[in-house]
Amino acid sequence: MKKTILILGGEGFIGRNLIDELKDNCNIISFDLEKNAKSDDKITFYKGNFTFQQDLEIIFKENKIDIVIHALSTTIPSNSNANIIYDINSNLVATIELLDLMRKYSTPKIIFISSGGTVYGLLDHEQSVVTENQATNPICSYGIVKLSIEKYIYLYNYLYGINYLVLRFANPYGRYHKSDKQGLINVILNKIINHETVTIWGDGSTVRDYVYINDCSSIVRNLIEKNISNETINIGSGVGYSINDILKIIEKQIGNFKTNRLETRDFDVPSFILDNSKLQSIINHTFTNIEEGVNNTYNWLKNNE
Amino acid sequence: MKKTILILGGEGFIGRNLIDELKDNCNIISFDLEKNAKSDDKITFYKGNFTFQQDLEIIFKENKIDIVIHALSTTIPSNSNANIIYDINSNLVATIELLDLMRKYSTPKIIFISSGGTVYGLLDHEQSVVTENQATNPICSYGIVKLSIEKYIYLYNYLYGINYLVLRFANPYGRYHKSDKQGLINVILNKIINHETVTIWGDGSTVRDYVYINDCSSIVRNLIEKNISNETINIGSGVGYSINDILKIIEKQIGNFKTNRLETRDFDVPSFILDNSKLQSIINHTFTNIEEGVNNTYNWLKNNE
Repeated sequence: MKKTILILGGEGFIGRNLIDELKDNCNIISFDLEKNAKSDDKITFYKGNFTFQQDLEIIFKENKIDIVIHALSTTIPSNSNANIIYDINSNLVATIELLDLMRKYSTPKIIFISSGGTVYGLLDHEQSVVTENQATNPICSYGIVKLSIEKYIYLYNYLYGINYLVLRFANPYGRYHKSDKQGLINVILNKIINHETVTIWGDGSTVRDYVYINDCSSIVRNLIEKNISNETINIGSGVGYSINDILKIIEKQIGNFKTNRLETRDFDVPSFILDNSKLQSIINHTFTNIEEGVNNTYNWLKNNE
Repeated sequence: MKKTILILGGEGFIGRNLIDELKDNCNIISFDLEKNAKSDDKITFYKGNFTFQQDLEIIFKENKIDIVIHALSTTIPSNSNANIIYDINSNLVATIELLDLMRKYSTPKIIFISSGGTVYGLLDHEQSVVTENQATNPICSYGIVKLSIEKYIYLYNYLYGINYLVLRFANPYGRYHKSDKQGLINVILNKIINHETVTIWGDGSTVRDYVYINDCSSIVRNLIEKNISNETINIGSGVGYSINDILKIIEKQIGNFKTNRLETRDFDVPSFILDNSKLQSIINHTFTNIEEGVNNTYNWLKNNE
C-alpha cells in the first residue's frame, strides 16, 4: 500500500524536489504558507501557517499520515541572529506542537531536514571533515534551533516511540531554488541569468560541501524505501569546494560574469565538508559531479525565469 | 574594588549558598520571585518574575553589574516533559532576553549553572564517567533547555564578546535545600526528620555523582577570583554512589528509617559520574567526603525545620 507522506514546506526548495521524487509512489500532502507551484493532481495541498497549531491539526484529522517530512523553516542562517526569539518560537516551539500532534494522532515517523551547514558550527582543532559525532557549536541561532529540534525529536522517540530520521543536509543547490539570499551556486546562476553583478563575501577561500538537490531527494526516497529509522545522517557529497573554485567552475561551464567582493559575514564557518561514510554504509549513492549539477541548474533556471 | 554580582535565583538552593560564599567580598544583588530568607543588610534584593523582562531591566538600569550568575529555573527535570513549551518559554526565551539586556548594558560576564545531571542524558557505550566533550542526548526537556541555553551563551560570546562560564553541576546536596521533589539526599534526610517513609524509585542501583553544595560554592568563588572565563566545566565529586549506597551511608550516620520502593521513572539515566579532571586542572579542590556532607546537611535541616 502506498505510504501517505506529509511534507511541511512543500512549496520550498527542498519540499518541491522531494515531492517530484516521491509523488509517483506515495500519497503526498503538501503544507505551506502559499501555493506557488502549478497544480498537480497527484498531490493534496493544505495552506497554513506552521506556527498555528490548528492549521496543522486539520491535516492530521483528515488524513492518516505515515511519515511527516519536516522541511520548513521560518528563518535562514543569515537573518536568524537578528530575531532569536522569533526563531525559537516559530521553529522550535512550533515543532514541539507538531510532535505533540504526531503523538495525539499516532503518526509513526518524522524525517527532519536538519542543517549540516550550521549545526556543527565552530570546529575543534583543524578538522574540516565532520562526522555525525562531531561536537556542535553553532554560530547562528538557525543552527542552535535546528540542533534543539533534533534533541526534542530524540526525546519524543525515547519517551513516546515516534521514529525519526535526522538528515543533516550540506549546502544543496539545484532546481526550485530562487532565493537571492542563500545558496551560493543558485544565487550566482540567478545573477548571471539576470545580468547582475555577483557579490562575493570574504576572500573566496571559504570551503563548503555543495550537494546537488536531486542527489538529496533520491537519498531520502531510498532511505524511506529501506525503512531506515532512528539515525542521524549527514547528507553531503563529501567533497569541498571554495567559493573561488565554484566561481571558476561556473565560469568554465557558463562563461564570464561580473563580481563584487565584500567583507566576510561573521556567521560563516571557515571550512567544512560533511563526512558521508555513514550514509554510504547504508545506501551506496553515486553523487552527481558538480559540473553536471551546475549545468543542469543553470538550464533549469534559464527555462524557469 | 568589590565586584557587583547579580544572582538570579538568589532565594533558591544554589543561589542562597552562593550568596553566603560571596557576600563578604562582593556586592550581591539577589533576584527571585519571593524573598523567603531573613533580611541580610549585605545584599540587595529585587523581587521579580524571570519571564518579565522589565523586572530584570530595572536591575541593570540601577546597578553596574560585573557578573550575572544564572542559577534560576522554572522547571525541574521530573516535571519538564509535561509542559515543554512552558519550559522553553520561561527558561530558554527568558535567558535570551537576559543576554540581550547584558548586551544593552555592557555586562561583561555570565556564569550559567547548567546541569551535569541532565545535559549528557543517554550515554554512548558503557561509559559512565563523562568529560565535558561527551555527546549530549538529554532525556528530559530540562536538559535540552539547559543545553540550548549553553549554545546561545557560546553564540553571544562569539558574536558580542560576553564572557561566560558554563558550570555543569552534578547532583548537589546540602543546606538551604528543602524540596520534596528532587535531590535524593536532602529528600531522604527531610523525610527522616519528619518521621515519614522514604520513597525509592527503582531497584536502588542508579548511580549518581553527589556533590556537597559547600564544595560547589567554594569552587564558584575560586573560579571568579581566578577570573576563569569562556570554559564549560563539570562540577562534580568524580565519585559515584548508588541509591542503595546512599541509603546505607545515611543509615550508618543517622539511624534506621522506613522505605517504600516504587517503579523507576523513565527520565532516569542508569549511571553516571562527572569527570572533574578539567576542574581539578584549573583549581585543585579537595571535596568533602560524603559522610561529613550528609551529617552537616542533617544537622542543618534539623536546626532549620
